[in-house]
Amino acid sequence: MAPCDFNNQIIIGVMGGGTASSSDLEMAYEIGTYIAENNYILLNGGRNKGIMEASAKGAFESGGITIGILPGTSLDETSDYIKIPILTGIGNARNQINILSSHIVVTFKGGPGTVSEVAFALKFGRKIILIDFYPGIFIDQYINKTVFLVKNPKEAIDKIKEILK
Amino acid sequence: MAPCDFNNQIIIGVMGGGTASSSDLEMAYEIGTYIAENNYILLNGGRNKGIMEASAKGAFESGGITIGILPGTSLDETSDYIKIPILTGIGNARNQINILSSHIVVTFKGGPGTVSEVAFALKFGRKIILIDFYPGIFIDQYINKTVFLVKNPKEAIDKIKEILK
Amino acid sequence: MAPCDFNNQIIIGVMGGGTASSSDLEMAYEIGTYIAENNYILLNGGRNKGIMEASAKGAFESGGITIGILPGTSLDETSDYIKIPILTGIGNARNQINILSSHIVVTFKGGPGTVSEVAFALKFGRKIILIDFYPGIFIDQYINKTVFLVKNPKEAIDKIKEILK
Amino acid sequence: MAPCDFNNQIIIGVMGGGTASSSDLEMAYEIGTYIAENNYILLNGGRNKGIMEASAKGAFESGGITIGILPGTSLDETSDYIKIPILTGIGNARNQINILSSHIVVTFKGGPGTVSEVAFALKFGRKIILIDFYPGIFIDQYINKTVFLVKNPKEAIDKIKEILK
Repeated sequence: MAPCDFNNQIIIGVMGGGTASSSDLEMAYEIGTYIAENNYILLNGGRNKGIMEASAKGAFESGGITIGILPGTSLDETSDYIKIPILTGIGNARNQINILSSHIVVTFKGGPGTVSEVAFALKFGRKIILIDFYPGIFIDQYINKTVFLVKNPKEAIDKIKEILK
Repeated sequence: MAPCDFNNQIIIGVMGGGTASSSDLEMAYEIGTYIAENNYILLNGGRNKGIMEASAKGAFESGGITIGILPGTSLDETSDYIKIPILTGIGNARNQINILSSHIVVTFKGGPGTVSEVAFALKFGRKIILIDFYPGIFIDQYINKTVFLVKNPKEAIDKIKEILK
Repeated sequence: MAPCDFNNQIIIGVMGGGTASSSDLEMAYEIGTYIAENNYILLNGGRNKGIMEASAKGAFESGGITIGILPGTSLDETSDYIKIPILTGIGNARNQINILSSHIVVTFKGGPGTVSEVAFALKFGRKIILIDFYPGIFIDQYINKTVFLVKNPKEAIDKIKEILK
Repeated sequence: MAPCDFNNQIIIGVMGGGTASSSDLEMAYEIGTYIAENNYILLNGGRNKGIMEASAKGAFESGGITIGILPGTSLDETSDYIKIPILTGIGNARNQINILSSHIVVTFKGGPGTVSEVAFALKFGRKIILIDFYPGIFIDQYINKTVFLVKNPKEAIDKIKEILK
């Protein structure tokens, strides 16, 4: 009587702002659905707002597994679309965990927290797919090596599949 | 085409030594099967040895979801029975995450790492079920309040169900 | 025009409860003075209460350097007797840092947080001097190896000097 | 017989690459001397290379207090010019501590680790002085608010004094 049956452990991180444009929120929902439909696990920062909420909702409503790496010690402010909340209690230092635990990181426009995650991804050698987001010249030497710029979720999921092939 | 369908998010942590007696390893496997059969998620420290390996194997072979909170930055030394490895990169400070993320913590005999987890469980108010393990008088004032002493996995799963009712 | 001149980097951690008996508070103050008088650096959890406050005050008033490893992201609730506050923002996971950064750890009676520190000290091989505190059988196999039981600050500082010789 | 007498607790963080140009290394040494001469405490990542080593050396040789926030669990690879090594054992998640513990952060050119520190400084509202370093457009909205661009250590120390006035 297994509660769950899935054959892989590919975790796709989705990062981005706690506040975001409606266009980015729509795209975050869409990449969430693609992640679930491809049987990947979605991981994000777990909170009930912005890119976190939208991407978790997309994956959740397509039946996917969603993991939230929360900064605090309680479930307050956790997205309802997170099936597996991981409470770290280490604040924004949890950004390191977001990146280390992801095979590939999809990133939307965000503030300093999101930039720290892009930086950690470069640091730890994780592939990053930036959807309509260019934070600055610190990423330039990595472009088309570990950093890929795409325009929309469809291009992002195609790139994910290509990388994982 | 959902990769997974489960209706609850109850996470049961299983703690214990990286080395353990054969009796404890058998009991760790058994509590793992009970956790999966009851559709709970099993969470532990994720490594390929001792109570971690045995409990993950029990849950895995009963089709359950298994989460490992790893201390390091790579998948080396991760149990093959962990479906969802969370790489923290924060060393033994990840013991805090093991406890915070668990609704209830089942604990077998272990060394200082395990004791630190019992201490964090007391600190954060998590219920702890100790299977044939008594680390010392620091737990005495919590017994039958947040700490429960049981003799075997059957008693442990019954206590879990009673607590969650 | 040097602000400071000291020749060693011996850091003595002092752990213990956020609340404590008046007898323990007096002894915490006393060990703080001994630490400063011997030109060691005092390190503790940094907060303005209990053993932290008392031990920092003792060292401070004897002109010593006092370091506080704080759990939060602000200086609120930091002891006035901490000269160097280190803000970690990682909550109680900072207990790992308290221990790793100390050459020797002096510990008074305390609750679960203190026990987690004793456990981390055993884990990381730090020598621990327990002043009138016995948390339980998990320490038994370490007694007179890495754990030493003493009755008062005078015995504690003598043991520190003996270990460091 | 106080080991140390200093009247303030102003901590100046110095960040930058583990490898650096000879020009930047010279400037890191110079800002270290200014920090010590002004009786501020220098804090950095603590390792024996690049900007960390050079800035610690500058402060150390001017008699200043130097604190290193180390990623690992041992003193290996710690700069000889760090008087107070804090061993965190939390890897690069310690970058959060570097920033939180600093009143003002001086930053030289660096790689992803350094960029994560700039991002954390923006996140936590710490003032940042960038010496001949511009990581990209993510800092633009903060320039002359919490981010200041300067050309050399002399301009940096003047800006520090102006901010602290």
